[in-house]
Amino acid sequence: MPRIALEHIAQTNNTGYPAPHDAAVAARWVRRLGPAHGLTDFGVSHVVLKPGGASAQRHWHEDEDEFVVMLAGEAVLVEDDGRTLMRAGDMAAFPKGEANGHHLLNESDGDCVFLAFGRPPTGDCHYPDIDLLWTGGGYRRNDRSSF
Amino acid sequence: MPRIALEHIAQTNNTGYPAPHDAAVAARWVRRLGPAHGLTDFGVSHVVLKPGGASAQRHWHEDEDEFVVMLAGEAVLVEDDGRTLMRAGDMAAFPKGEANGHHLLNESDGDCVFLAFGRPPTGDCHYPDIDLLWTGGGYRRNDRSSF
Repeated sequence: MPRIALEHIAQTNNTGYPAPHDAAVAARWVRRLGPAHGLTDFGVSHVVLKPGGASAQRHWHEDEDEFVVMLAGEAVLVEDDGRTLMRAGDMAAFPKGEANGHHLLNESDGDCVFLAFGRPPTGDCHYPDIDLLWTGGGYRRNDRSSF
Repeated sequence: MPRIALEHIAQTNNTGYPAPHDAAVAARWVRRLGPAHGLTDFGVSHVVLKPGGASAQRHWHEDEDEFVVMLAGEAVLVEDDGRTLMRAGDMAAFPKGEANGHHLLNESDGDCVFLAFGRPPTGDCHYPDIDLLWTGGGYRRNDRSSF
């Protein structure tokens, strides 16, 4: 059955971020729709972001296009150009290699829901606000030393 | 600016379908968001489907995963298992190689809006209801003869 039944897909707030960078995403509850439905060309994450939560640490990918569409509630898109309120139906695109760190913050008092599309990155992901670097093989400090 | 401003992206109801198969999608108005925003890993089409329109001829791809999410209005998802009403927030996934022809029909009296994700197919696309085959290089009849 092609229609997606969210209630049958596990939801997790796991993160690979090392402490203390993990706390910001504890309110991010993700369902990975791609593996659940046999999609391999791209990934689709259904995300419920609780009040106060962040979608991620502010970041940009060297080799992964990303796209988000808001389904419900409100979030603030934070990127180099400023802050933009995002509501249901609003969309944003983050092409690979564009050095514009971005994330969504739920500053409202209700849940917000969005879909995030991408492909597993194999190259570096940069976090301009914190001492964190994704190398493809794992998280490191910006000088590439281990946590 | 990552946020997508739809009003700046051209909208078209062009189709490559040969007659008479083109008429069904004349009410499908598409904006291609990927090229407009530098995305190359996957394609994103913003589609406004007018009353009476179809998203496509019913089809399935040998080598292209597809995903749709409804943003507004109502459409009926038609596939081998039957008909499913889709409303804002509803999603469906169509993994490559699954021989289950699918499309969306707008049987309501208002516009419906959805996003469709995929990657350009290089292999065959099958249309179980009509004498049409996409070969990667163009449209043919099911016996691979030209139109």
